[in-house]
Amino acid sequence: MQKYKIVFFSIVCSSLLTTYSGFSQDISPDKVKPIFGILPKVADNPANPVTPEKVNLGRYLFFEPRLSKSAKISCNSCHSLANSGVDGLPTSIGHKWQIGPRNAPTVLNAALQFTQFWDGRAKDVEEQAMGPMLNPKEMASTKELVVQRLKSIPQYEEMFHKAFPEDTDPITFENAAKAIAAFERTLLTLSRFDRYMDGDLSALSPEEKEGLKTFIQTGCITCHNGTDIGGGMFQKFGLVHKVEWLQDLGRFEVTKNPADKYVFKVPSLRNVTKTAPYFNNGRVWSLEEAVKTMGYVQLGKNLSDEEVKKIVSFLGSLAAEPPLQITLPNLPPSTAKTPKPMP
Amino acid sequence: MQKYKIVFFSIVCSSLLTTYSGFSQDISPDKVKPIFGILPKVADNPANPVTPEKVNLGRYLFFEPRLSKSAKISCNSCHSLANSGVDGLPTSIGHKWQIGPRNAPTVLNAALQFTQFWDGRAKDVEEQAMGPMLNPKEMASTKELVVQRLKSIPQYEEMFHKAFPEDTDPITFENAAKAIAAFERTLLTLSRFDRYMDGDLSALSPEEKEGLKTFIQTGCITCHNGTDIGGGMFQKFGLVHKVEWLQDLGRFEVTKNPADKYVFKVPSLRNVTKTAPYFNNGRVWSLEEAVKTMGYVQLGKNLSDEEVKKIVSFLGSLAAEPPLQITLPNLPPSTAKTPKPMP
Repeated sequence: MQKYKIVFFSIVCSSLLTTYSGFSQDISPDKVKPIFGILPKVADNPANPVTPEKVNLGRYLFFEPRLSKSAKISCNSCHSLANSGVDGLPTSIGHKWQIGPRNAPTVLNAALQFTQFWDGRAKDVEEQAMGPMLNPKEMASTKELVVQRLKSIPQYEEMFHKAFPEDTDPITFENAAKAIAAFERTLLTLSRFDRYMDGDLSALSPEEKEGLKTFIQTGCITCHNGTDIGGGMFQKFGLVHKVEWLQDLGRFEVTKNPADKYVFKVPSLRNVTKTAPYFNNGRVWSLEEAVKTMGYVQLGKNLSDEEVKKIVSFLGSLAAEPPLQITLPNLPPSTAKTPKPMP
Repeated sequence: MQKYKIVFFSIVCSSLLTTYSGFSQDISPDKVKPIFGILPKVADNPANPVTPEKVNLGRYLFFEPRLSKSAKISCNSCHSLANSGVDGLPTSIGHKWQIGPRNAPTVLNAALQFTQFWDGRAKDVEEQAMGPMLNPKEMASTKELVVQRLKSIPQYEEMFHKAFPEDTDPITFENAAKAIAAFERTLLTLSRFDRYMDGDLSALSPEEKEGLKTFIQTGCITCHNGTDIGGGMFQKFGLVHKVEWLQDLGRFEVTKNPADKYVFKVPSLRNVTKTAPYFNNGRVWSLEEAVKTMGYVQLGKNLSDEEVKKIVSFLGSLAAEPPLQITLPNLPPSTAKTPKPMP
């Protein structure tokens, strides 16, 4: 069954590649745009509409360490907005310095993805935002503690009422996650590549254009396509060649379906030059090495150093431009009723 | 000798109090301003002039986790600028979740103080900034590691050259500390009380004015005076009555002079309503309790609940107004030469 799926997928890939090859010499914006699409201003969600009040509250909560048991760890601890939405570590450090099993993906543009976490265990950023708060290795909190802390702080009472005007008792764990998610839905980063797709041919250097061509011709776009240049499908890591060091069973841990062994969500490549180290366990620090590995294990190709260099050059054009501008909130003080930090 | 000093100090205090009592009914701006002085725009230091290039670099470095051994902890981890320059914990959490012995004081307005750290072991913020980087319980780094990490990142090379244009080899541990300090020298927060001293009588509520009067009459200004409303002298904690729970020998640990036992730098009261918990070990969460304790152990007075309430009300007027506006930097990526995180 798994074998059948892979064979089927390979056929799909081949035909996609054939299709792409048809115009792969032509990397004019009009040809390229349909592969990737247009980055929206906000990744809106009808089930959790992005409002200024919710985004503002979400910004506060994103930086709010009191959502964690210790009152030391916030979303921003591992998804640092000073650091392209990552912590720059192979795998993250959580409550009591526990070291987690997977690399923290960037929160930038994450809301565009079809599913969340490496293994797709949350359907959107609303659901994702709840995970780390409750994970005993990460923020180690409980729903009750989060609500108790927030309810004890009058300024949050007010902000939740503004963000969720229809709720009579708006401070809930789910609404906290919704507000964080609404903030994240605004964390979309334009890049020079978007400007290029928008028709500004000078936005990419000649080498970057060569890289784009190689990126398409090699078949990287089979998986790294759509507005987030990835984040649109699951894929087996080691599709063509086995990844020798891979221990993590990926999506299998969620579904227990043997076909999902070593299957992960395809990560976004936006800001990838700023979000080392790479892969599910952050094992690889060099983007060149990561590209070379992917070419081999996913596409069965031995990319030359020259091809790798070009692709990496193109990937540099996916970095936030203009750079992200985030203003820190001014977190409100605790009160006598606020449950104390539990480090 | 110690006894003699205390007696002498008590005489000084008494005369100060007498002096203050003379106009303590009159809390007009002109009478109050000489006690506190005018908050400068920047706490400049001729030995480390505050330049825009240095401040910008310092802002990057303040948020730079790669200054720590683990590449996880930055200055901002314990002096969170989203959180009034503190971590809100009794004592801070450092490398490998080690819990330190003292409460992290706010970095806001700290540059105004006559000495740094609770025990005054650093003469200014330039010297202070080096401490936590090298402290094995905090950032656990070494001078060599800091320099190696920074030198491996071309953007820092450029920024250091701009910040220290006269240096041929500007990336040094000392210059990193100087840049951080220059940034900190801009972290001064005006408050409603400053506006009041500037002549805007409506900037304080009637209760806050009553609190100011009580603050002066009680004698709090004996120690909490000057532009930082504290931070201008050392003082024995438990001057009149012993602090039963106090273990920390304070400045004695630095000087080994018996007269310095239980002596600490008088902390600033700016933003004090936002920087709980209080005292050297963050033992007290309630500002009311802290004020009551101080009245008793330092001034030998049993303040009534009403007096405490008024003083706390006045202290609220010392919070940053307008609120601090800090834009996060966009930290440059590591390179192949950057020493890896060592968590």
